[in-house]
Amino acid sequence: MQKKTNIGDLIRPEIKQMNAYHVPEATGMVKLDAMENPFPWPDDMKKQWLELMSTVEPNRYPDPAAKELIQELRQCFSVDDELGLILGNGSDELIQLIIMAMKKDVCVMAPTPSFVMYQHIAKSMGVDFVGVPLSGDFTLDMPAMLASIKKHNPAVIFLAYPNNPTANLFDNADLLAIIEASQGIVVIDEAYQPFAGKSYLSQVKRFDRVLVMRTVSKLGLAGLRLGFLVGSEEILCQLEKIRLPYNINSLTQLTAHFAFKHIDIFNAQAAMICDQREGLLRSLTEMDNIQVFPSKANFILFALLDDSAERVFDALKLKGMLIKKMGVVLGLPQNCLRVTVGTAEENELFCEHLKTILKK
Amino acid sequence: MQKKTNIGDLIRPEIKQMNAYHVPEATGMVKLDAMENPFPWPDDMKKQWLELMSTVEPNRYPDPAAKELIQELRQCFSVDDELGLILGNGSDELIQLIIMAMKKDVCVMAPTPSFVMYQHIAKSMGVDFVGVPLSGDFTLDMPAMLASIKKHNPAVIFLAYPNNPTANLFDNADLLAIIEASQGIVVIDEAYQPFAGKSYLSQVKRFDRVLVMRTVSKLGLAGLRLGFLVGSEEILCQLEKIRLPYNINSLTQLTAHFAFKHIDIFNAQAAMICDQREGLLRSLTEMDNIQVFPSKANFILFALLDDSAERVFDALKLKGMLIKKMGVVLGLPQNCLRVTVGTAEENELFCEHLKTILKK
Repeated sequence: MQKKTNIGDLIRPEIKQMNAYHVPEATGMVKLDAMENPFPWPDDMKKQWLELMSTVEPNRYPDPAAKELIQELRQCFSVDDELGLILGNGSDELIQLIIMAMKKDVCVMAPTPSFVMYQHIAKSMGVDFVGVPLSGDFTLDMPAMLASIKKHNPAVIFLAYPNNPTANLFDNADLLAIIEASQGIVVIDEAYQPFAGKSYLSQVKRFDRVLVMRTVSKLGLAGLRLGFLVGSEEILCQLEKIRLPYNINSLTQLTAHFAFKHIDIFNAQAAMICDQREGLLRSLTEMDNIQVFPSKANFILFALLDDSAERVFDALKLKGMLIKKMGVVLGLPQNCLRVTVGTAEENELFCEHLKTILKK
Repeated sequence: MQKKTNIGDLIRPEIKQMNAYHVPEATGMVKLDAMENPFPWPDDMKKQWLELMSTVEPNRYPDPAAKELIQELRQCFSVDDELGLILGNGSDELIQLIIMAMKKDVCVMAPTPSFVMYQHIAKSMGVDFVGVPLSGDFTLDMPAMLASIKKHNPAVIFLAYPNNPTANLFDNADLLAIIEASQGIVVIDEAYQPFAGKSYLSQVKRFDRVLVMRTVSKLGLAGLRLGFLVGSEEILCQLEKIRLPYNINSLTQLTAHFAFKHIDIFNAQAAMICDQREGLLRSLTEMDNIQVFPSKANFILFALLDDSAERVFDALKLKGMLIKKMGVVLGLPQNCLRVTVGTAEENELFCEHLKTILKK
């Protein structure tokens, strides 16, 4: 009998060296770690939704084209019919889809730090990732970006707008220069758009190689895992061919369709969150030994100047409050923490706890 | 200014040559085309489910590990803790995940005809697909399979058990010989297991490179798009690293968890479908000029010996009944149609219509 190959040897070595994406246990905690919208649905809306859900036929396949949901999204976000629109289970599936369509032996690029899934998904698919460090003030380091684009000719550049975890919007002129310089696709990831007041969605028709990516997670539908991608039909019709045909299930299609008929409620919640963000920024700025970074998202990044992020994170956790400890991330100051903007009560409680903890 | 590359040139050529997976419009039709369970949920069960759904927090991310659902699946299908279990949005996402983990420049293999997504997904990912034609009686052509395994050394072999579209179970000794011969992973796709009475799930521990894949679609939860993969922890812990961390949304997790607490209802429905299948097989066998193939699934493949599949398909469609026209598929006789087993009334109506149409 032929000797068998070791089963582990079938897997790509870069996967074997990977760690899985870690998500901390959060049961029973005040969750200010995951950029969720803290507001539940109004009772009346939930009641209407449950009535609608009673019409679902779980035994039947979903509409593979998700026609009604796509129509609703087009209307809700003014995406005209000349543009392509494609759905994914969260932005994650869309990032995967874009990379999957590219020719072999290309690379993808993003500034760093940015959304960790760009690199994680590229690695998962065996595609090289080139990270270009941001400037110290978290703006794009344009000489480095342009040099890196010229050197590596990336098939895809991901630009989070606003950026995560730094919470800032990149400069418009810088984005345009990157689009101009790139031979590949530029994906503008507008996950945090509801809190930014700025978007490239209405301009996407001007560019033939720009895709705008959105998720409904931060707007208040994180449980649905729905993302969408808008861009030239020329690119999106190719991605559509490799989209798994029934990727968006019936419950998601019906729920998202319903939710977007109530977009005003989510927009009002986003406005409340922006309001809370400004208050939280002020409170944090008033505290000693903290460097607070500007935010156009629903979270705030801050660095402890005279304390350990680990210690503060743990102390908050003991008080039942979960925020995000950034760890050692190239391009971030030491001892950074990221807090999601919560309800007025949650933000107040967070500031109280933080003050107490920092005093010690 | 540097001349831009043509945007279409960024996409892999094999994708540009592809057609998207086509799903026919079915609104208002009697659907006997998609292997769905025809039975709705009992009213009482639906009511309980809606009560549970009222507890969902759409604004919060799902449990990324889907712990409760996985625990329920392990219990329901007697999957012990030493084995890995991983969830996907349908089998499709799991097929993608398996192929994604493999080293570059490998190929994947399946007998043909079989589930079309093995080839479609491999192509989508730029991985070579080797199809090995079945014998004329739809058994595995073992000399050809073994020669092809030796020649191509596939990283993954997909075996649908029962096979789709042929509806038969492959021979146990043949499967074991393929597992024995393969240097790669062998995926036994048990999508139609609820109607087959046979499974490799309880034996998966005997093999270190066999994965058993299931979907809940045919059992009666097609709308959920949930699949799961069971196999050695050594392989699955690597796949877990590249699974998109929140791939299964909150609605699916809660609904599937609830549904599997009522597995008896689905099992009883599957038994009714098997019963109906036997009746439908008898009725079809009694018709003239039809070759009916044996079935261990919830569908029946048959060939028209003296008529055009196109004509019969269209005539059924005019009567409001949708079945599957197989088209020209290597390894199938000409003029094949595939009908899903429906309710007693649907099957009776189908036979009546078919008889009338064939007489003309």
